[in-house]
Amino acid sequence: MSRHALRRTQAWSAAAEQSGLLNGDPGIRSGDADGFLVTSLTHVRYLTGFSGSNAALILTDGAAILITDGRYVTQAEVEAPDVEIMLSRNVMAGFVDFVRAQPGRQQWWCEADHLSAGEWLVLGAEDRLSMLPLKGAVESVRLIKDDEEMAHIRHACQISSTAFMEVIARVQPGWTERDLAAALEFQMRHNGADGAAFDTIVAAGDHSAQPHHRATDRPIQLGDLVVVDWGAKVNGYHSDQTRTLVMGAARDWQHELLTLVRASQQRALTLLERHFSAGPGPESFPEVNLSVATCDVDRAARQVIVDAGFGEYFVHGIGHGVGLEIHEAPMMGATSEGMLLCGSPVTVEPGVYLAGQGGVRWEDLVVATRNGLETLTQAPQDCAFQ
Amino acid sequence: MSRHALRRTQAWSAAAEQSGLLNGDPGIRSGDADGFLVTSLTHVRYLTGFSGSNAALILTDGAAILITDGRYVTQAEVEAPDVEIMLSRNVMAGFVDFVRAQPGRQQWWCEADHLSAGEWLVLGAEDRLSMLPLKGAVESVRLIKDDEEMAHIRHACQISSTAFMEVIARVQPGWTERDLAAALEFQMRHNGADGAAFDTIVAAGDHSAQPHHRATDRPIQLGDLVVVDWGAKVNGYHSDQTRTLVMGAARDWQHELLTLVRASQQRALTLLERHFSAGPGPESFPEVNLSVATCDVDRAARQVIVDAGFGEYFVHGIGHGVGLEIHEAPMMGATSEGMLLCGSPVTVEPGVYLAGQGGVRWEDLVVATRNGLETLTQAPQDCAFQ
Repeated sequence: MSRHALRRTQAWSAAAEQSGLLNGDPGIRSGDADGFLVTSLTHVRYLTGFSGSNAALILTDGAAILITDGRYVTQAEVEAPDVEIMLSRNVMAGFVDFVRAQPGRQQWWCEADHLSAGEWLVLGAEDRLSMLPLKGAVESVRLIKDDEEMAHIRHACQISSTAFMEVIARVQPGWTERDLAAALEFQMRHNGADGAAFDTIVAAGDHSAQPHHRATDRPIQLGDLVVVDWGAKVNGYHSDQTRTLVMGAARDWQHELLTLVRASQQRALTLLERHFSAGPGPESFPEVNLSVATCDVDRAARQVIVDAGFGEYFVHGIGHGVGLEIHEAPMMGATSEGMLLCGSPVTVEPGVYLAGQGGVRWEDLVVATRNGLETLTQAPQDCAFQ
Repeated sequence: MSRHALRRTQAWSAAAEQSGLLNGDPGIRSGDADGFLVTSLTHVRYLTGFSGSNAALILTDGAAILITDGRYVTQAEVEAPDVEIMLSRNVMAGFVDFVRAQPGRQQWWCEADHLSAGEWLVLGAEDRLSMLPLKGAVESVRLIKDDEEMAHIRHACQISSTAFMEVIARVQPGWTERDLAAALEFQMRHNGADGAAFDTIVAAGDHSAQPHHRATDRPIQLGDLVVVDWGAKVNGYHSDQTRTLVMGAARDWQHELLTLVRASQQRALTLLERHFSAGPGPESFPEVNLSVATCDVDRAARQVIVDAGFGEYFVHGIGHGVGLEIHEAPMMGATSEGMLLCGSPVTVEPGVYLAGQGGVRWEDLVVATRNGLETLTQAPQDCAFQ
């Protein structure tokens, strides 16, 4: 069975399990369906390998049919060799055609978060078709990365970490935020990335107080805090890391913020190490110590910043999952409810942002494995412009 | 009135007009609503200036309230100074809170294409709230670009055109597809882009037969057709162009394909020039000759390729609109139904793709103005590696 076929089997099982827990309308046999319409492009890629920009996947208990348009016929045959391919300019129309060709009343699962209200209403108007919306079925399978996924993520982290060290050694006062972003993105491409994971954030001086600032023509000047948040993309998988540097000598308040934020990150990492360092336990208890509540990770890091009196300036969660999406499950914030499991790479990224003054964020990507906690990003913990 | 306030007024009018044409359920007063929930991030940006990644916009007849989360408070105040800001980790929950605080039964427009089925079902479960799904209301306003938008698009085109000429002069046999993509993306950043409009396509040799190939480590060799499809992003606006070059001397079939595809593009451009060259006509007939059916543009270009016997290998439409999205309305394909209007930048991009052999695409971005047809992309029509 191919890797993608295995994932499709897992996705089908996850959908069936969720469906069985739902109170469907009386016409729907809970836990059972004629098929599963997968409309998230990320999920189509995960379940087939196809990476085009217009597609849906028809999953049934025995078959998998990829719907895409004529631009992608060659690419689909190459990337998704073990599924049937159906060409349709409009993939939803392709699905409707498929359903109409089936006999009897049809009951299908669909992705509530990845189908539009308009599409939902169109499908709802079909005779003989009932759609049961599921939430997070494929996401639940994607939570734990397999070896191939981890290899791509490790590769992306290695590329982006190396590129950062190569570039910051060259930065001089007077480089603009844009110059630094351009150099870093080029170096990642040069080192083997398919592209940047996202538009690189370079935020100098008071710009650093905006967590999601974009690079501008502002020159980096002596005395500036400079937040750099960057990542590489490899085979659809991402890396994500942040460093905050000072151009020249750090002033006291800058040094204090940097020390505080890094201590906050360290507190979260220590918690994760403690949870996951015990190893898998005996074969008969494989899940012992292999999960931690996501809100506990946030709380550990946040407490350090709250204790220092900066709690109100840590305006986001401690981290998020990274994979085929740059932000994906599990989210780790103060009110998050899920567990962080072994095999889910997540960022650990506390930040403090003082409007009009400056901000600091420090981010690494880590994953808990059966051998303990592994830090995937390799940019040095104590980095500075040369 | 600010530019964004003007756009909000236009969006409200477009929504009211569409709403009046719909057969709503009996509880809904057609053409009237308590507000308009805008959930497309692109539309939020268009209507407020805010460019963050988590937001929705509440529009009422008199007010505009931007919902976003705490990460974006500074950015929202800077980018969207003329709207009220509401902070909510979950923007849909923020909207529900807002509605519950209003008296009486509430009737709201929403965006059918930019609200998920899951969100639709959640809103549908609210007491006192009826949602009327609209399609394309804000899109219809975005069709015609204002002066500021055109300035950004022209700037993006100038950046990407210049970067291309600077880079192809340096390419040598042995450069990989990835090398060329990295050099081009760096040069666009260097020339002032906020980033690449999309992951640059460089497709050499038989890769060129895939319209949406991504750059790999394949070296560009003597005799290769090389499709380069690239663009720059400036203030959220995009450019988009494609050239196909031959490394070394073109073989006969390559030369024939290049000549054919360029003739096809020229046929479409000639049609557009003829339609739009007459100018606006007298003041009393401002709309004379200021539109052309999108399917006619496709047909003109396609006929050239069909006549040469390659019709089945032109697997996509002749073009698409470009603006805040890299692909947006109007779409121009064989079965498109809309009109191309003065003031809508569109690509004109015929292509022929021969699987296992190679492909050619030739793409420029043009806009009809009251002074005739303007080609926005400036890469030379007859370009070659040095």
